[in-house]
Amino acid sequence: MATPRPITFLSDYGYEDEFAGVCRAVISQIAPGAPLIDLSHGIRRQDVRQGAIALANALPSCPPGVHLAVVDPGVGSARRAVAVAAAEGRFLVGPDNGLLSRGLDRLGGVLDAVELSRSPFRLEPVSATFHGRDLFAPVAAHLSLGARLEEAGESIDPSSLATLDLPTPRIQEDRVVANAIHADGYGNVTLNLDADMLADGPLREGERLEVRAPDGRFDGIWARTFSDVAPGDILLFEDSSGALALAVSNGSAAGLMNLTRDSEVTLRAL
Amino acid sequence: MATPRPITFLSDYGYEDEFAGVCRAVISQIAPGAPLIDLSHGIRRQDVRQGAIALANALPSCPPGVHLAVVDPGVGSARRAVAVAAAEGRFLVGPDNGLLSRGLDRLGGVLDAVELSRSPFRLEPVSATFHGRDLFAPVAAHLSLGARLEEAGESIDPSSLATLDLPTPRIQEDRVVANAIHADGYGNVTLNLDADMLADGPLREGERLEVRAPDGRFDGIWARTFSDVAPGDILLFEDSSGALALAVSNGSAAGLMNLTRDSEVTLRAL
Amino acid sequence: MATPRPITFLSDYGYEDEFAGVCRAVISQIAPGAPLIDLSHGIRRQDVRQGAIALANALPSCPPGVHLAVVDPGVGSARRAVAVAAAEGRFLVGPDNGLLSRGLDRLGGVLDAVELSRSPFRLEPVSATFHGRDLFAPVAAHLSLGARLEEAGESIDPSSLATLDLPTPRIQEDRVVANAIHADGYGNVTLNLDADMLADGPLREGERLEVRAPDGRFDGIWARTFSDVAPGDILLFEDSSGALALAVSNGSAAGLMNLTRDSEVTLRAL
Repeated sequence: MATPRPITFLSDYGYEDEFAGVCRAVISQIAPGAPLIDLSHGIRRQDVRQGAIALANALPSCPPGVHLAVVDPGVGSARRAVAVAAAEGRFLVGPDNGLLSRGLDRLGGVLDAVELSRSPFRLEPVSATFHGRDLFAPVAAHLSLGARLEEAGESIDPSSLATLDLPTPRIQEDRVVANAIHADGYGNVTLNLDADMLADGPLREGERLEVRAPDGRFDGIWARTFSDVAPGDILLFEDSSGALALAVSNGSAAGLMNLTRDSEVTLRAL
Repeated sequence: MATPRPITFLSDYGYEDEFAGVCRAVISQIAPGAPLIDLSHGIRRQDVRQGAIALANALPSCPPGVHLAVVDPGVGSARRAVAVAAAEGRFLVGPDNGLLSRGLDRLGGVLDAVELSRSPFRLEPVSATFHGRDLFAPVAAHLSLGARLEEAGESIDPSSLATLDLPTPRIQEDRVVANAIHADGYGNVTLNLDADMLADGPLREGERLEVRAPDGRFDGIWARTFSDVAPGDILLFEDSSGALALAVSNGSAAGLMNLTRDSEVTLRAL
Repeated sequence: MATPRPITFLSDYGYEDEFAGVCRAVISQIAPGAPLIDLSHGIRRQDVRQGAIALANALPSCPPGVHLAVVDPGVGSARRAVAVAAAEGRFLVGPDNGLLSRGLDRLGGVLDAVELSRSPFRLEPVSATFHGRDLFAPVAAHLSLGARLEEAGESIDPSSLATLDLPTPRIQEDRVVANAIHADGYGNVTLNLDADMLADGPLREGERLEVRAPDGRFDGIWARTFSDVAPGDILLFEDSSGALALAVSNGSAAGLMNLTRDSEVTLRAL
């Protein structure tokens, strides 16, 4: 028998409850030797977008294998449960609510998809509220053991998979109007903006800029990293996922500028 | 040598400190290849009941092996440290303060028990405040390697093990008076009530009901899952452990109804 | 090929983000079978001292191998990235900001050290803000696989490694003036004081004492453990790392006495 393939696991189950642990236990029963890599279980409760961004950021560092992700406010509803094949023999398993979409984009798109609600791998009786335990974890474990995608569920049209709605930035002659799409635990705020979008734009790396945020105007600089500016200063930088982000050296950009989800941020050269 | 048996691990050590990690390290030294499944280390500090409920909920999903659990407000006192044998060749290891009792009930009871304070497996000197590291983790590791229960400590009467005091629900002709016994991280509140207790009771699945909580009266419905009601609506449902629980769709029942430990909740058909 | 050596991992990456998971994923790609033991990722953000104390407390329980630690407020700056050899064939990997120093002291000092910024094991392009992923985790993984220290980077003078500045206690004829250096999640407060420093000092185990803290005077006792005093009472005790600490039985010493980092605490026999 082949070695079980690695399984990565991301969820919003949190750390107070046993939910993530129970899924790990289910996986270890079905696929005892499968390497299990917890990406995070601290995604904000039911925050599909945060989960999607974290998963997409992590995937390029993950070994090919099975990528289990559960942020599932619609558990038990008509939302579909899916397993999806992508490049490099990777499988993504989770609810069809956009959670997987950004990661799939990064992997180059969907090759094949199945719906799991009647999967032969499910644990009966499937509860109405804990599909991580009864559906997603068992499917991930069987895919780790070598099951083919079509054994896991019924084929569906890959183009029917849910996507994520994100605001679109506006790059104008003298300014860039972007949005906060994610704040990490340090208070660094990712924008819906990649450095290459600004190749011909109004801002230049190394130059000073003005940031208009909901709570006022701030001066900053487009720098390489935190230590390039003085403590307390604001910087725009390319974060480790390749997106542009706002930070405060030794501080929290989210806090200082009161940036929350989708907050509009206008950047202009000074 | 036989393969080490899986060890599950639950505690209130939290995630800020190195305590759970140190126990993991101790286990990995004694039983290097033992699969270690973290159930949760986010049990509320010294909350034996929450730990007992989480452990009991997780056990049916756990592979047979060793189940290590440490929520131990009495560490260093006269409370006993125990290892207990249960069905399917399972062992439970932890303080004798009720933490293991609900899990043992679910496994069908205790087969055998030993007291560990002079266990030959303990790490000397045993500290007064960190029995997880010095006593429980080493015993769990040795049981994983195949040690017999009687090698781990001195035999004690299984009927002398501590149990958990939980309030008892009252099922009356026209109402059910239950108690909140646990709130999970989503704010769903488990009651001391199983669906089968209500087979002939005054409530019916699918029907509307009134919930009297400490902060007032609320209308709800006994539904299958969150998405069966509108966002913000209250539901009674059978949770993934088989208990009845109160939830608010896309919200927190604990918050909305101000339910805390042992809060009395009166349910009545509408 | 030899078995990969165990890797322990401690960081301030927290549990909301995927950062620690990404490092785990990187390690699992380079050193697939390496045992990976998470010590904690909940070190307070950028709190080098807390990380250093947690690492030093954990090391004596950790199997010899590679000890990866990342609390790195200066990431991307001129601070050095290092790998260090210590006794028992152990390697420590992390930023050169004092984080490793207390652990190295406990292991008996540094045998050899290399600087990693141009390590052949780094993942290119090295980001400016996530050296855990691009530098430290890959180096740790290669050391786990058996790489020699000098293959990981350029040799540096071990005596040039950063150390940690901690306040020094003053042991006087009739009192001890110490400082709070760390509070754990239970609110127990470690002092910069070991029991053996007080062998001839003004305090005796088992005797009552006065604690002067920033918020007033309190009565306590030098006891063995929490349960030796009544709930709510204050005790001085030798904690599981061998340091003296203040606690409140069933309570929080940090909270009750308002002890924060470096708070001065005067202890005097009653």
